[in-house]
Amino acid sequence: MLKAQIKVLLKKSVLDPQGQAVEKSLSSLGYHNINHVRIGKYLEVTLEETDRAAAEAQVREMCARLLTNPVIEDYTFELVEVEQ
Amino acid sequence: MLKAQIKVLLKKSVLDPQGQAVEKSLSSLGYHNINHVRIGKYLEVTLEETDRAAAEAQVREMCARLLTNPVIEDYTFELVEVEQ
Repeated sequence: MLKAQIKVLLKKSVLDPQGQAVEKSLSSLGYHNINHVRIGKYLEVTLEETDRAAAEAQVREMCARLLTNPVIEDYTFELVEVEQ
Repeated sequence: MLKAQIKVLLKKSVLDPQGQAVEKSLSSLGYHNINHVRIGKYLEVTLEETDRAAAEAQVREMCARLLTNPVIEDYTFELVEVEQ
């Protein structure tokens, strides 16, 4: 089986209020060396599939159809082998 | 500068209703080879820090204090170099 580890973030041009809030909180906790914080989603999708190319194509399709909002979000993913 | 890429997921023993909902949605969209879906948070925190060991210690501390809930969540992170 293959596990897709998908990282989803808002596009750089889109305001990230959650990230800004966390940035301020870190600063008020005394962490003054924080330059920037962005917050998004992390998904792990395990596929019963052994062919990497097929899995990759399927993950892209699922991201476009359901898992991400291509208008405001960007994603990257990696495929790792997992045991049954 | 160093960027911490932090992946946060609910612990395996904690129910993940959001993941289950997405799993069902994928199935109803015709993806029947999905074995499991987990959904969590993804954070990118950029630190004005060049020492990897110091950055690593700081990220762990920030995760424990603010960024994650250690009672129900597990996290992993990687540090990558970024340009100024």
